[in-house]
Amino acid sequence: MGMFQRFARLPLKSTYIWSLCPQYSTGLTAAGRALIVRSSQQIQHRCVHSRGLGASPGNPGAAPPRLPFSRVTQEDLAFFRTLLPGRTITDPDLLKSNNVDWLKTVEGNSEVLLRPKTTEEVSQILRYCNERNLAVCPQGGNTGLVGGSVPVFDEIILSTALMNQVISFNNISGILTCQAGCVLENLSNYLEERDFIMPLDLGAKGSCHIGGNVSTNAGGLRLLRYGSLRGTVLGLEVVLADGRALNCLATLRKDNTGYDLKQLFIGSEGTLGVVTAVSILCPRKPKAVNVAFLGCSSFQQLLETFQCCRGMLGEILSAFEFLDASCMSLLEKHLKLTNPITESPFYIVIETAGSNATHDEEKLHKFLEEVMTSSLVNDGTVATEATKIKALWSLRERVTEALTHDGYTYKYDISLPVEKIYDLVQDMRGHLGDMAKNVVGYGHVGDGNLHLNITSPSKDPTLLAAIEPYVYNWTSEWKGSISAEHGLGLKKRNYIYYSKPSEAVALMGSIKAMLDPKGILNPYKTLPDNIHE
Amino acid sequence: MGMFQRFARLPLKSTYIWSLCPQYSTGLTAAGRALIVRSSQQIQHRCVHSRGLGASPGNPGAAPPRLPFSRVTQEDLAFFRTLLPGRTITDPDLLKSNNVDWLKTVEGNSEVLLRPKTTEEVSQILRYCNERNLAVCPQGGNTGLVGGSVPVFDEIILSTALMNQVISFNNISGILTCQAGCVLENLSNYLEERDFIMPLDLGAKGSCHIGGNVSTNAGGLRLLRYGSLRGTVLGLEVVLADGRALNCLATLRKDNTGYDLKQLFIGSEGTLGVVTAVSILCPRKPKAVNVAFLGCSSFQQLLETFQCCRGMLGEILSAFEFLDASCMSLLEKHLKLTNPITESPFYIVIETAGSNATHDEEKLHKFLEEVMTSSLVNDGTVATEATKIKALWSLRERVTEALTHDGYTYKYDISLPVEKIYDLVQDMRGHLGDMAKNVVGYGHVGDGNLHLNITSPSKDPTLLAAIEPYVYNWTSEWKGSISAEHGLGLKKRNYIYYSKPSEAVALMGSIKAMLDPKGILNPYKTLPDNIHE
Repeated sequence: MGMFQRFARLPLKSTYIWSLCPQYSTGLTAAGRALIVRSSQQIQHRCVHSRGLGASPGNPGAAPPRLPFSRVTQEDLAFFRTLLPGRTITDPDLLKSNNVDWLKTVEGNSEVLLRPKTTEEVSQILRYCNERNLAVCPQGGNTGLVGGSVPVFDEIILSTALMNQVISFNNISGILTCQAGCVLENLSNYLEERDFIMPLDLGAKGSCHIGGNVSTNAGGLRLLRYGSLRGTVLGLEVVLADGRALNCLATLRKDNTGYDLKQLFIGSEGTLGVVTAVSILCPRKPKAVNVAFLGCSSFQQLLETFQCCRGMLGEILSAFEFLDASCMSLLEKHLKLTNPITESPFYIVIETAGSNATHDEEKLHKFLEEVMTSSLVNDGTVATEATKIKALWSLRERVTEALTHDGYTYKYDISLPVEKIYDLVQDMRGHLGDMAKNVVGYGHVGDGNLHLNITSPSKDPTLLAAIEPYVYNWTSEWKGSISAEHGLGLKKRNYIYYSKPSEAVALMGSIKAMLDPKGILNPYKTLPDNIHE
Repeated sequence: MGMFQRFARLPLKSTYIWSLCPQYSTGLTAAGRALIVRSSQQIQHRCVHSRGLGASPGNPGAAPPRLPFSRVTQEDLAFFRTLLPGRTITDPDLLKSNNVDWLKTVEGNSEVLLRPKTTEEVSQILRYCNERNLAVCPQGGNTGLVGGSVPVFDEIILSTALMNQVISFNNISGILTCQAGCVLENLSNYLEERDFIMPLDLGAKGSCHIGGNVSTNAGGLRLLRYGSLRGTVLGLEVVLADGRALNCLATLRKDNTGYDLKQLFIGSEGTLGVVTAVSILCPRKPKAVNVAFLGCSSFQQLLETFQCCRGMLGEILSAFEFLDASCMSLLEKHLKLTNPITESPFYIVIETAGSNATHDEEKLHKFLEEVMTSSLVNDGTVATEATKIKALWSLRERVTEALTHDGYTYKYDISLPVEKIYDLVQDMRGHLGDMAKNVVGYGHVGDGNLHLNITSPSKDPTLLAAIEPYVYNWTSEWKGSISAEHGLGLKKRNYIYYSKPSEAVALMGSIKAMLDPKGILNPYKTLPDNIHE
């Protein structure tokens, strides 16, 4: 995310065009069409954008000028205070943490935070805001990495923090139904007591909300095993921009009656509706967990190990992660961690999760024997005990932390055909030569998801110019995704064309115009400033 | 499907209203708005609907009057023949099987069958048809059960039969990309040679096309293990009504760049676009398969057995199916099959699929020991050898066939909370009393999917009136789905409100109007005749 870490103030007289595709404008109301502004004279904006965060004009990740939404008045506040007594927050100190993202790279200037408890309250808020043309930023745990969960200007923050009730859990089907503001870790604990687990797990689980997970189509550590939220989310309740509640909160594994509308709201980052409740299919809690940490001489051998692993561990494989030797050096240097095995160019973390400890260990040992004797793997160690498992996992999980100690970090979250993921790291190394301090790669091999990180002693526009658009062009050439799991939010909205054809983006614009004709829901996010066909 | 097996000729002067919700009509072109017809004088239709199949006026599953689409002219045929030489079929004998559905309950009267080989050809066909206002019925293997894959009147049949090429397979990621007309069984064979399997399996696999499977969001036998197509389909190429090709044919497990458009086309039964190619994530071929056939004294015990099974078989459980004693009687009586275990009110078929035969057998035996000693299960038998596996499976798979020998069968495919599925059978039995010959239940316990079948010596309108809308009201009361996996097609389109709120149906109408403003794609299917808010 580093490339967008500081935004400049936008020139007050910038000529900003939010051009809309034909369909997009067709579906817009008169008020919505007023958003198409073609000169700064037409935009009556205050300088309340991403304040104090610096910027470079022409940075596609920077905030655009404010759109001509209404401003919150005393009458509006009176309405909100009547609707949400004690839950309409206007104290700037209390609003501070809701105005800035987790990475501290995007800061808005919202003056109102609303904390509804019920879907009906969300409905009334949005109905009112839509009528008044007030922009709204829906916010869950605010742990997003692309500036999608904070206001860009003075959007009203609609927090799901108090919508934190479990509605039902069926211990036969494993289907959980809960409000959108339930914290992922709380749901995990709730389920573990009942011998189930959530089908997703994230580093941010202590803060992130299930509604936010769904709205961003979060990936995480269990995707390899349990699949994406597109399959595990069975139902959603969503409030549309005009306040209508759409109840698609089914608790059924199968339902083929008409179009599957809930899919529109999974991964659309709150731009099409506010998720207020979720039904999700939860797997049984595994009885046994093992972790192996292995070394390989080449990425090719790592890929062959992956193939062998899928065959021999099959149904118990729950994670196949990797880091390169450069990552290991940073772990040793900055965090004083010890490499538990022989030095190797590549390291793998394999996790198994199953219903029978003896069987799982036997499978794992057979697999290890195979990859050691065939020399796919140089060395390795296995943990079955919780403390050692945690220690091995930390070698993968703490790479991000180690990188922060290495200097200014340019971060990319790329999806590619699995056999190509390390080529990007090597090509980038060759391309940058001595310009970068370190170019490292780690990530989810099982999902074809690379975390490419480039460090530099300090922020370096020349280095950035060498990285971008090189990294995006490279990804695009191999039909990869420039955002595997983080979404587009504010920061990456204008890079969408690297991964999606213009016809697809135009259709997204039409969908936005249909569901939110005034554009009040999470403006400046997900869709690019210019939609062209 | 029995309840719709014979349609009456529609009264020629019927007053037919295809009312459209505000959004729907807003998005329509002038030509589209012309579809809103309010008197028979405005409809210049020939009597070419569902000919010779009888009908009852007021049957919500019957065909509506023909909409005012253009008729195919000699000029149109000339265009198609130039575009698709030798692949523009007009011989009525050759068209016969494409005009009638597999159940022989819906018959159209199309005079043209087009057999494109490429996406570009599909694009040109639809561009032409859209301009000419010619209706099109996309057709895969024509194995659907709700009349979704055959023309209702004279719609042009666009068959994917010649679009049958595998485009690529990556044996590291397990991602297959192929044209929409590939037959499911051919893909299965292709993959098995490469040590992988398709994530779905259906009785119709010898005929059905993967494009049709995706367009109908097919469920089938492996859903319990590998999840729905919403998770396993990674990319689609779709041609829209106006001929634009939308290339979302990604081969990535993760891609969060914008809205996931492909989900719109999964399960929309060809009403929003024609799927021309599919990317799908395929699991490794299991090394070992076991099947157990068990008997239970009550449905409660069956549910407890299911719970125990999920815990003890965990990751190797691949199917948990059931049939009741009435099904077994029909198998014995009509097919002379032998019940391999002690007579019981309920029978279960459990399948395991795993990577280690010894481990799987051990898990299965431990589980069986547990359920036998705790008396959850009365009796049981296990098969590990292919012939015996097939014999046990046939007790579940041949119930449908046995039913056809028992008389006229009224068939329902219902999704319910798993603990409720048999209550419907029992309540229906009580409700119908002596009116029905047999009321039987079987299906996919693991998916909460009941196949409810009611037999009668012959077709019986009084019996039908007692079944419907009772079955739909019952399902709706328990928030079930009136179509778990079969879709709505022609036959069930008007029952959508039993499972979806009117706001949701209205939104579906808006989506249809946005993507297909003239309504040329698979008209009369999926959406109800009347969309109201």
